[in-house]
Order: sequence, then structure tokens, then C-alpha cells
Amino acid sequence: MSSKIKLGILGGGGDSLIGILHRVASAMYDRYEVVGGVFNPEHEESLNFAKAIGIPTNRIYKDLDHLISEEKALPQEERMQVISVLTPNFLHFPMAKKLLENGFNVICEKPMTTTYEEAKILEKTLEQSKTIFAVTYTYTGYPMIRQMKEMIAAGEIGKVQKVDVQYYQGWINPIIHDSEKRANTWRLDPEKSGISCCVGDIGTHAFDMIEYVTGLEVQEVLADLNYLYEDNVMDIDGTVLLRFSEHVKGVLRSSQIATGEENNFAVKIYGEKAGLKWEQENPNYLYLLEDGQPMRVLKPGHAYNSELSLDGTKLPPGHPEGIFDSMGNIYKGVAKAIRNEDYHPAEFPTMKDGIRGMNFIEKAVESHKKGNVWVSITE
Amino acid sequence: MSSKIKLGILGGGGDSLIGILHRVASAMYDRYEVVGGVFNPEHEESLNFAKAIGIPTNRIYKDLDHLISEEKALPQEERMQVISVLTPNFLHFPMAKKLLENGFNVICEKPMTTTYEEAKILEKTLEQSKTIFAVTYTYTGYPMIRQMKEMIAAGEIGKVQKVDVQYYQGWINPIIHDSEKRANTWRLDPEKSGISCCVGDIGTHAFDMIEYVTGLEVQEVLADLNYLYEDNVMDIDGTVLLRFSEHVKGVLRSSQIATGEENNFAVKIYGEKAGLKWEQENPNYLYLLEDGQPMRVLKPGHAYNSELSLDGTKLPPGHPEGIFDSMGNIYKGVAKAIRNEDYHPAEFPTMKDGIRGMNFIEKAVESHKKGNVWVSITE
Amino acid sequence: MSSKIKLGILGGGGDSLIGILHRVASAMYDRYEVVGGVFNPEHEESLNFAKAIGIPTNRIYKDLDHLISEEKALPQEERMQVISVLTPNFLHFPMAKKLLENGFNVICEKPMTTTYEEAKILEKTLEQSKTIFAVTYTYTGYPMIRQMKEMIAAGEIGKVQKVDVQYYQGWINPIIHDSEKRANTWRLDPEKSGISCCVGDIGTHAFDMIEYVTGLEVQEVLADLNYLYEDNVMDIDGTVLLRFSEHVKGVLRSSQIATGEENNFAVKIYGEKAGLKWEQENPNYLYLLEDGQPMRVLKPGHAYNSELSLDGTKLPPGHPEGIFDSMGNIYKGVAKAIRNEDYHPAEFPTMKDGIRGMNFIEKAVESHKKGNVWVSITE
Amino acid sequence: MSSKIKLGILGGGGDSLIGILHRVASAMYDRYEVVGGVFNPEHEESLNFAKAIGIPTNRIYKDLDHLISEEKALPQEERMQVISVLTPNFLHFPMAKKLLENGFNVICEKPMTTTYEEAKILEKTLEQSKTIFAVTYTYTGYPMIRQMKEMIAAGEIGKVQKVDVQYYQGWINPIIHDSEKRANTWRLDPEKSGISCCVGDIGTHAFDMIEYVTGLEVQEVLADLNYLYEDNVMDIDGTVLLRFSEHVKGVLRSSQIATGEENNFAVKIYGEKAGLKWEQENPNYLYLLEDGQPMRVLKPGHAYNSELSLDGTKLPPGHPEGIFDSMGNIYKGVAKAIRNEDYHPAEFPTMKDGIRGMNFIEKAVESHKKGNVWVSITE
Repeated sequence: MSSKIKLGILGGGGDSLIGILHRVASAMYDRYEVVGGVFNPEHEESLNFAKAIGIPTNRIYKDLDHLISEEKALPQEERMQVISVLTPNFLHFPMAKKLLENGFNVICEKPMTTTYEEAKILEKTLEQSKTIFAVTYTYTGYPMIRQMKEMIAAGEIGKVQKVDVQYYQGWINPIIHDSEKRANTWRLDPEKSGISCCVGDIGTHAFDMIEYVTGLEVQEVLADLNYLYEDNVMDIDGTVLLRFSEHVKGVLRSSQIATGEENNFAVKIYGEKAGLKWEQENPNYLYLLEDGQPMRVLKPGHAYNSELSLDGTKLPPGHPEGIFDSMGNIYKGVAKAIRNEDYHPAEFPTMKDGIRGMNFIEKAVESHKKGNVWVSITE
Repeated sequence: MSSKIKLGILGGGGDSLIGILHRVASAMYDRYEVVGGVFNPEHEESLNFAKAIGIPTNRIYKDLDHLISEEKALPQEERMQVISVLTPNFLHFPMAKKLLENGFNVICEKPMTTTYEEAKILEKTLEQSKTIFAVTYTYTGYPMIRQMKEMIAAGEIGKVQKVDVQYYQGWINPIIHDSEKRANTWRLDPEKSGISCCVGDIGTHAFDMIEYVTGLEVQEVLADLNYLYEDNVMDIDGTVLLRFSEHVKGVLRSSQIATGEENNFAVKIYGEKAGLKWEQENPNYLYLLEDGQPMRVLKPGHAYNSELSLDGTKLPPGHPEGIFDSMGNIYKGVAKAIRNEDYHPAEFPTMKDGIRGMNFIEKAVESHKKGNVWVSITE
Repeated sequence: MSSKIKLGILGGGGDSLIGILHRVASAMYDRYEVVGGVFNPEHEESLNFAKAIGIPTNRIYKDLDHLISEEKALPQEERMQVISVLTPNFLHFPMAKKLLENGFNVICEKPMTTTYEEAKILEKTLEQSKTIFAVTYTYTGYPMIRQMKEMIAAGEIGKVQKVDVQYYQGWINPIIHDSEKRANTWRLDPEKSGISCCVGDIGTHAFDMIEYVTGLEVQEVLADLNYLYEDNVMDIDGTVLLRFSEHVKGVLRSSQIATGEENNFAVKIYGEKAGLKWEQENPNYLYLLEDGQPMRVLKPGHAYNSELSLDGTKLPPGHPEGIFDSMGNIYKGVAKAIRNEDYHPAEFPTMKDGIRGMNFIEKAVESHKKGNVWVSITE
Repeated sequence: MSSKIKLGILGGGGDSLIGILHRVASAMYDRYEVVGGVFNPEHEESLNFAKAIGIPTNRIYKDLDHLISEEKALPQEERMQVISVLTPNFLHFPMAKKLLENGFNVICEKPMTTTYEEAKILEKTLEQSKTIFAVTYTYTGYPMIRQMKEMIAAGEIGKVQKVDVQYYQGWINPIIHDSEKRANTWRLDPEKSGISCCVGDIGTHAFDMIEYVTGLEVQEVLADLNYLYEDNVMDIDGTVLLRFSEHVKGVLRSSQIATGEENNFAVKIYGEKAGLKWEQENPNYLYLLEDGQPMRVLKPGHAYNSELSLDGTKLPPGHPEGIFDSMGNIYKGVAKAIRNEDYHPAEFPTMKDGIRGMNFIEKAVESHKKGNVWVSITE
């Protein structure tokens, strides 16, 4: 490698947390440098932000169209090699689509689109573009999640028989009980946020995670959502029953009114031979439960971990890495793809994950609206 | 008090764990002495067991009928004052009924009966008998569960908005995957065990617990049970969606195939103002979560606990009490009732709890069999 | 066994926590019945307490001398078979001595005596009496402590190379900072409490525990105690360096001013092959650490545990037992000894443990007073 | 800010973990760019490493002297603004000295020097140079450590009365028991590693931490070190008694033979009013213990945290940051100093911390060698 991958960014300016997350993640493995982008719809703010983060302003563009035309005008070796799309949700689809159509590799925040239909269109676009596309289900980059996936794939817990995933937050609690606040929160406005709040924002993470770690596909869902107030049209809590196959079942629980919870995302997979448990807030512990055996606690960086897990750990055991490192691993995977290096297909979530996520959101809402009935989510 | 309460026991002989649990619990507060009973259908074994536990054999009876007639022949002050029914499930109802009809106070193991219909009959019998009746939902005796109940009742978490209860065990896993074993396990035989295995055995504990701590009544259930094998007719895993009122929802998850889990019973109640969490395997910790505040960890024996909680703690903070102590608190409550002392209605579960439990089992199975539909469990 | 062992109790009346602990413990395995004793120096209160706990008053004696003469006048098979000494510390020695001299088996609370000299005298008395003597280092009865001991004995962690034990409480904190309170607390009065507060009360537990689990003997100690105020003559905090042999060292930390701590007693033993850790406030978890391996978490009641550990567990895994059960196991061991049943020498602490404890207290104080120098504690 | 701070690095090439730690840390807040340095004594390897991490090779120098002369020849605004010294321990002193003498700001890994004498010389050099100097006691950058410091400074736990710090690792265990390995490990070679292994490497972290969080200075130390084998001259385990003032004591425990431990660094500070506890392996939890109150668990990113703590957290609560973020906060502090922005003096450890650390190492070894006696560590 003779220089860093040139990364452009759309959105993520100012105090944007997602902006920080992506910039830090991109720096984790000495693989990327941020060369420009459109941080903000206001060009002036975009320029100021570039100065604030100490990057040259010459590739800070007025808008996406200018970015595309001017970058394409650059010699191949100077051009942005991948663009991260960190804009508000409803812009993910049009921006990603245009980028793919113009031959750019894309790292897209989730939810990938606002509808399943858009997702299917984007899939077609990608097929024609022959570029690289990643959707940032951040949590799949954690070393112990990768370990979990590899252990299940290797049959260490036997056939999966029960899946239980929880994603509990409490942040919307102080908003939802205040009629004024709930009327003025963009997350609760379907125009801005899509058809779902809770399922769309965090339920999808949970859904993606269980398909990621188990390697199984959910076949049917039955959802019971909660809105708490009559004047609120967006779900802020929801339990979804899952069917993988006739005798493999699961339950996905997501909430934004689990008062006092921060980001309590927890995954439990039970197989015929053993169970595995993991919690996002203590991401460096993976619990292995076997009938009649002492529970084992796996941690990152040990020789007993899989290659995929070890590739996502930078320091020796006992030096806790966190969520930036998890996203950093996703960026590392994309970098390998861009560089045509060997990489494991599980190093970053792809279009397929994005599509499954959109399908899940729509079917969960459909199930609820039809009176909590089973709805298929196979295509 | 001039002497201990005279306790008779039906069942619980030999290595019976439930027998140990009740005998130890009865001794916790210097309130009871075991004076006799029918420990085993074989009279000889009953007598031997009496010797093994060092009690006189003169009140070890051949069967329940002899117990009743001979005890009633004794002077009032010598008679057994309460009988604990620890026999196999299908005997709970006929034995308890006969005891109540003959004026004995009864402590009955759960499930109280094998059907809801029996439960309603027993309720009638109790009304006519004017005796004391307790059903041993053991876990409600834990000091931090009592604390949880009192805090919710006092409004400390505000209006309850979400309920999540889990009861995961793995013990049936090595049985269910062995066709011979699963054909020969009494828990999987509806003749011996009633219409449900998992919901009946542990789902009811979970159900009782949430009604206990929240003071709310579940209105409707929608259950999805799992049987894993076609030749197995008893549920060994089940998720039940719960509706308390239009905007208060919950989920109850129970499993006996959560491989490697021991007795992972966990309760989470989220209210408008705060959340409370508790786990049975570490029963002396109660977690209070409030928006934007440090989580607080309450423990037994502190002055900040409610009177009901403190009454169930014997030693100072940091001296862990356990499940025997929890059951001991239930026995203590019954002792107060027998002695006509003041007691808190939450000191022991009653007929109403037993009836709710049977209703829940039948309606959960009904919901599942009808295709996972909502079924009312109000009467 | 045809009847329960007849247990007499000295002290432990009224609200005495130690009284509750011993009574409940004695009942744990259907092995004992409390038949009388001297609960209180005031005979009237003793009688009232007997009534309160529902036992006959005919064997409630005025004092120890009456107990001895009257019990000895009873036929052998009716006589108290063992006496528990739960009186204030300074009475342990004279009472235990008199009981041994009169042929009674004794269960003695710790500290066994107030001086090492007394302890040596008591040892002689015991040798001559041919009775059974136990000293209640309560915590050694925990199943996972027994497991720890057996694993170390079996070489599972290899040669012990480092020992770290902590016993932190905070209860004296609100007393010590109030000059009036600290002047009027019996624990801080050497007349009533012996030469040491913290080392004497909890340091000894820690000391006994490490000799118990490792099977090693401490050779030398170097102590640094803390008194906080000039007008306080009793240690309330102390760190003691330990030498087992030239290259095996350890540290014992005890405190009663570890503000906010409850009963935080923790043991860590590191060997050439592995380490073991345990914490009293969560006594059902034993952590096994091996180089490069996932940590394993052992719990009670599993087939992988030693016979000694399993003998101290009553219920299946996941049903937490606690401190009453730990003391109950000590009582069970004594019962076996009384009944001439086979028992493991580690089932209850003996005279030797009591002597070592007294030796430790005196040598730790001596080391501190001499300016924190090494003092031998071999005899 | 119009561009990033130009950072040069000495050492840290190849697979160096410390190199990764510093590079990632420098990128955390968009404040630095690595522009060159001397990654390796072999110039060729240095150049290759530059290519591997995608930075230009034009400022990769043959050695430190070339770096100094050539950088000084550059226009002020292009010159390296700070140099991180990540070379083997014995090179820290000469390199840092030369850099300071030539007017460069320095970020120096710990131990700052190999002797206290060198440290004092370096202090003088710094005084004359008027540059910025930081020593990277990594762990002081954790948000909850900053919070701990600020709470103690604000009097929230009252006067400190007891300090307990532990730093346990097990990595040397498989080395020390193999005579060949222990003869060939540089850490155990005083020529390469200084007079101490365990105290020097991790004991100093523990020492710095307690002076950092309490704001107190240790006055005297009494150390008992362990070498395990006669042919090993370097301590691999050691307990150090600490005196802050007559009635404020502490204990520092460090070990590299705590078999199976990873990086178990734990700090407990008890004051007259409350106690605070923290563990490095779960760095986002700070435990506040108060007499008779529920324990409180503080986490990063909440409004209740101090400004200094909040400044070191990038994401909302529940998104775990880790050790890179901790070091990133130190780099951020240095960046503010370089940019002449306001900063809190606790944002990065300074020369004084480095000197205290060297003093501690020498005095601990001296105490041990003199037979475990008290040695003053005030100057």
C-alpha cells in the first residue's frame, strides 16, 4: 500500500455523533484519509467544519452533484475511492443510488433506505455498478460477535433451537410523555423518519445481528408494537415473534421506553449443544453455556478465538476496545475489498443485509397493523 | 407464643428437593415444628423417612384419610395447625380440597391444581372453610422482590408502561433430543403433568411474579409455544405477549431448552419515571434505573428498604440469604395468619394467585393452539 | 438416626443475629433440635426468649453451672449432646473450657478466646476431654469454598505462588468519626473486645480462609494497622503481608472503614497453573483462570464439583443458597462427628483453626507495634 | 484551526502495539496527522512501515539526529509540532532530552526514564526548553477516572482515609516457570529493562493513578517484592504499603504472576463520606458507595458527570469507548496545550508524574532490598 484510501463523506458535520464515529473508525487501521465531501447542506458550514477538523477545503463540495462531477474529473489515482453516506435517513437512498450509478464505492449508514422498494431498486443499481457497497450495522464488527458467528458456523453450539435478542433504550421516555415534545421530534415524524421509529432504528440492528450470528434467515414475523399515546403514530416499543423454521423460534424485543436503559443490546442463541450470550454494553465478554459444564467467558485477543475475531482486535487481552473499534473493523473490511485483498465475507454488512433490514421493518409494521398476525419475510 | 406451630406434610419424603425446601423454610423463624404427615404412599417408607429426619413416628399416617380422622380426634391444641401439600401435581387438588373441607389450613405447592376448573372449585371450598390457604410461588418471598412491589405501589417508577419477564432453564435440553428419554419423562406426559410443561412449570412463576410486583392484571395473552419434535406433545419453550391495558404491554419468555441456563428468572418493569430489574440467581440486587441518573443498586437489610422487605431479611447487609430464606418468608407470613398476628397481604400468595396461574396456563395453550391469537384471561 | 441431636445454646437470645444464624443453621439438615440453654444472663429474659421461639422452658437454666449439673443428672440419652457458645467474646474461653471439662461437645463462635494463651489452654483441655470441638468460621462452609479447597488440594492450579485476601466492611465509618460514639462502642474497648478490633473480628476470618483453601501455613506476618484517631486504641483497618515460604507470598487486607462496603470478603489464589477467585457477597460463583483459556465459572450443585462441595449443596444449580446454608454445613459436619458417621476433616473448623486465629491476631498487632516488622507465627 | 497538528513518531513501527495505540489515539479528535519520524533503527524498515501505514516517506529519517536537523530546517509552519517517543525504555531519556533541547514538544511513553536521576535531569531540561511535555500514563485518560478525580477534589467522598490499588496480570507466569524462557526475556534483564520488572512496568501505573485521583502524595513506602526463582533478579510481583499522612494509609498490589489475569487494574478510594471503585477492564463503570445508601453506578456521557469527564467522552451513554479513547483524551489535552487553548491541568500527565513514577520504582526496590522497611519518597 503506498498511500491511504481517499474517503469522502456526505453529512456528519458539526457535532454529529455519527460523523465522529465514522471518522474515528476510518482511522483505526491506518487505511483511510478523509479528503473531502459535503458535510453540511450549507456550503459555508461545510467549509468551516473542514477547517475545524483540519482537512483542506479544496474538495469540500457544494452538493453531491458537484462532488460527483468534480471528483470524476480528477485522475483515477486522486479520486475519492469510497464515499460514506451519513446524511438523514431519507437521503440515504437517492445519494447512494447516484453514487453507485457513477461508479463510486459506498459505505451507507442504516437504515439503508426508507422503504423496501427503494432497497430493491438500490440492489439492482449495485448489480450494474460493480462497485463495493457496505451498510454500517456497527455492532457486527465487535470481535466477540465475530467469534460468536464463527463458533455457531463451526457447529460448536449444535443446531440453533432458540433465539432471543433484546435492544432496549430509554431515551424516548422523557419525550413521549410530554405532548409538545412528542409532536416535535423528527424521529416520531413519519415524513422524516419512515414508517417506524423503534423497529426502524434499533429493531433492525437486532434483526441483522441474529441473522449475522446464526447464519439463519427469519421466515415469518408476528409483531406487537406500542405507541403509548393516541396522538403518536410511530412505534416506540415492540416485541416481534420470529420463526426461522418450524421448530426454530425466536423473539426480538426492542424498546425506546425502557426507562433508564442506555443501549442495552443483548443477544442469546441457544443450540442443541450449547448457548452463547453477549451484551453490547460489555462487548468484550462472550458467554458459552454448556449442559453441566462451568460457563466459559471468552474475551478478545486470545489464541482460542477465530481468525476473523482476532483480525478485529488490536491490543492484547484486557485492554478494552469499544464501539469505535467495532466500526473500525467494518471500515477495515471495506478497505480490503477496495484494495482487492483477501477478506472474509463477514467483515462488513452488505446490500443483502440492508434489504433484509428494510423488509423486516415493513413486515413487522404490517403484522402489527393487521392485528398481530404472522407475515412472511421471505421474498 | 408458647410453642411452635404444628406442621404436617404430605409428600416430600426421601430425597425430594421440595421436601427439603419446605422443611428448612418452616424452621427459618422458629415458628414451626414438623410433627408428622404422609411423606410417601408406602407407609413403611414414610416411617423410615420420619426416623431419618429425626421426628417421632406416632403421627406418620398411612394416608390422608387416616391423617384427617386421627388428627381431628386429637384435642384442638395438639392438632396439626397447617398441612403442606408437596405431592405430585395431580394430587394437589384432591388433597387440598379434602383438607380444606375438614378445616385444616393448607400450604399448597404450585401448580395449585391441574385445571382452571379445579382451581375454581377449590376457591369455593376455601370460601366455605374459613381456613388459611397459601400457594407457594417461592420467589415472591425474596426481600428485593417485596421491595420492588412496594416501590411500584408507592409510585416510585410512575405508571408501569412495559413489562419483560424471562424464565430460562436448560434442563430439558439433554432429554428432548433423545427420543427415548423424551418418551419416558413424566414432565412430558400430559397424563401426569397437565396440559403444559414449560408454561405450566415455570411460565406460571413468571406470570405470578409480574402480577405480584406490578399489582396489575394481565388482560390478554398471545402465545407461541415450541415443542421441537413432532412426537412431543408438551411445550418446552414459549413466548407469551401480554396486554395489561391498551398501552401497557409486556412479554413473558419461558424456556426449558435455553441450553446451559440454570434457573435464569429475571424481571424488568419500566415505568414512566424509572425502571426496576431483578434476577433470581443474584437475588439480593435490585437495580433502579432513572433517566439521566446513575443506576442505583438496592440490597436487603438497609433502612432504605420498605418494612415488608426488611421483615424478610434476617441478617445485616452483605450476608447473602437465598432461596430457602425466600420460602421461609412465605412460611413466616402464613404463621402470622395462623397466629392472628398482623401481616401484610403480600406476605404469601393466596388462592387468587393459584387461580390466576391456572387460568394463564390454559389460555396460553389455547392461544397457541388457535394459531397464536389473543385470548382474554379476565374471568 | 432415631431422633434429632439435642442442642443447647449459651447466649444468642433476643434479637441476636448470631443466635438466628446458629438456630437456622442447626435446622438445615433435620439433624438438631434446640432443647434449651442459657440465652441471656437474666434468667427471666432467657425464659421469655424460649417462649418466643417456641421451645419448652424446662431446660432453660439460670447459668452455665446449673446447666452443667442438671444436664449431667439426666440420663445419657436425654442429655444435651452439644452446646453452642454464642456469648460475648470474653466468655468463649471460660465457658468452652468448663463445657469440655464436663464432657460436652462444643460449637464455639469465633474468636475462640481473647488471647493465644487461653487458646493453648483450651487445646489442652480438649485433648483431655475427648469431646468434639468446632469453631465457627462460618464462611468455610460455602460449597464453592469447599470446591476451591479441593481443587487446590488436587493440584488443579499447581503450586500456590500468590495469595490475596480482602475483607472490607464500612460499618465502623459512621462511628469512628464521631468522638462520642467511638468512645462508647464495645468493639473499640479493649476490655471487652480484646487487643484488636479489625484484625480480631474479620482479619481472622480472612486468615483462616486462606489456610483453609490453600492447605498452607503462614510463617511470618508484617502488619500495618490504622487507628485513624489518636484517642482510638483499637485497629479498624489493617494490611498484613504474609510469607508462606521463601517464594510464596501473600497479602491480607481488612478494613472496617472501607466506607459503604457491606461484607466484601474476597479470596484470590494464584498457582503455577491457574488462579481461583471467590467473593462472599456472591458466594455461588467460583472463577477459574488459566493462561490463555476462557475463564470458567463454577457453580454449586453440578456433577463437576467435588464430593465435599456437593455434600454442602441442597438444591439444584441456579437456586441460590446463602450464608445460613454455609453455617448449616458446619453444623452438619459436627452432627456427623457426633453420630460417629464418616466425615471429611474439612467439614468444620477445629481447635487448630481457633488457635491459629488467636496466634495471628497477637502477632499482627505485635508486628505493627514493633514498627511493621516481620514476626513469626509458627509455634 | 486550519490544519492538523504535525506529529512525528520515534519507534512504534511494525507490529508494535504501542505504535498502534498512539496512532489511533492521535486520530481520535481530528487533531493530529502523522507526518513522519523514525519508526525503526533500520532505515529501510522505517520506510517500509511508512508505506504500510500510507504516509509519505519524505520525512522518514535515518535517525533522531537527522530528524532534528532536517525538521529544524523546515519553515516553522511545516515543522513537526510534537514528537511521540515510543522506543524501548532505555532510549526514552536520551531521545526526550535531545528533543526538548531542540525545542520540540514531546509525548513520552512510560517509564519516562530508567532512573530517578535521569528523570531529574530531564526535568531541568524541560524547564529550560519551555516546551510541552507529556508522559503517557494511559489510564488517566478514561472518562470515569477523570470523574473520580473531580469528585474527590470536590469533596464528594470527604477526606480520603484508605487507598487500595491493584494491578494484576498473569502474562509472565508461563515464562517464569521455564528456566530457559526466563533467562531470555528482555523484561527480566536489568540491562534492558531497568531495576524493576513488575513495579517498573505496572506498579508505576498504579502509583500514578492513586496520586492522580486522590490529589494526595505518597510519603513513604514499604515494599515486599517477589522473584520466585533464585536465578531471577527482577521482581515479578510486589505489594507496597503506602503512607500518605499519619492516618491515611494505603496498599498497592501489583503482579505479573497472577495467573490468568489479563490487565486487572482496579482502584478503590475510601473517604470519610463515601467510597469510589473502578476497574480498568470495565472502564465505563464508576461505583459510588455511601453508608446506608444504595450503591450508585456512574457511567460516561451523562450530564451528572464533570466537565473534564464529559470532555473525554465522544458518544452517548451505552456506547462503550475503550482504551484507545483514553489515550485519545491525553492526546487531545496535549493538542490543546500546543494550540494554546484552555485546558484542564489533569488532561495529560506531565513531567512531575514521570518523576514521581521513577522515584517510586527506586524507593520500592530499595525498601525491599533493605528488608521491607519504610523509605521516604518525598524529595
